[in-house]
Amino acid sequence: MAKEIERKFLVADRSWRENARDAAKLRQAYIASGPDRSVRVRITAKGKARLTIKIGGSGLVRDEFEYDIPVDEAEEMMALAVGNVIEKTRHKVKFGGFVWEIDVFEGAYKGLVMAEVEMSSTKDDPELPAWLGREVTGDARYSNHYLAVESGPAELLHALSL
Amino acid sequence: MAKEIERKFLVADRSWRENARDAAKLRQAYIASGPDRSVRVRITAKGKARLTIKIGGSGLVRDEFEYDIPVDEAEEMMALAVGNVIEKTRHKVKFGGFVWEIDVFEGAYKGLVMAEVEMSSTKDDPELPAWLGREVTGDARYSNHYLAVESGPAELLHALSL
Repeated sequence: MAKEIERKFLVADRSWRENARDAAKLRQAYIASGPDRSVRVRITAKGKARLTIKIGGSGLVRDEFEYDIPVDEAEEMMALAVGNVIEKTRHKVKFGGFVWEIDVFEGAYKGLVMAEVEMSSTKDDPELPAWLGREVTGDARYSNHYLAVESGPAELLHALSL
Repeated sequence: MAKEIERKFLVADRSWRENARDAAKLRQAYIASGPDRSVRVRITAKGKARLTIKIGGSGLVRDEFEYDIPVDEAEEMMALAVGNVIEKTRHKVKFGGFVWEIDVFEGAYKGLVMAEVEMSSTKDDPELPAWLGREVTGDARYSNHYLAVESGPAELLHALSL
């Protein structure tokens, strides 16, 4: 089991794109979930698939179990998912010794852009890039799970002019 | 994805034990669940662990995805399970060309014995051994998930004198 320790933010402008690399399209959906846990399947455009179980109610730290699975089985699971399949392109930006992941959503959430940084300890204190907007760590409405299973907050999609 | 097609019964007496083989102790628990799905982790006494996702409301046929996982991660997941860990010993009995699995429960469900037969098609019509009791296929109360997450039907434990 790994610990997932991450902070998540909205994104205020497009300036992060200057240093972005490794753009990767992916699709993901949720197979099951509970108040403090989710079971996710993700398929990348490069043809890799992974099953991820996250457990823990805290926004900052969660237990995470990840397993590579055959793509054809991931596709079958996705067809049986709870809620919608989310499509996004993930970009990476190195900043202040940390790797930031910027997710640009497509499909139903086109216009939504979120950034997250994974830390190895809760004591890590990553420097915040100027292109970050409001922090949404622990705000369930901005979790990928919420976006997939509930209808997302409409103001979120309209407030951003990206 | 495999299709799980199975019928499940209570067990009326002990005569199945004469032909039983391959007794295997196992523990299992549920990581997440929904009305028509469950995510289960199982650890055998031989030190193998497996994650199983079952989807489908029907009692007879369900989609099943299974992955071997490291035992230490399975133990960690079990500690984070929803509901109880179920302990049972699984025996096998060949009868009429089918393999019957007889689960003898321990711990909180000591006294409960259930038999199931896996079929390769819904058209299969396995001959029913004389030691079977009432059929409980599709009866959610007798699912392992229900036993783990809800409190089991008390009459079930008292009605059987095994």
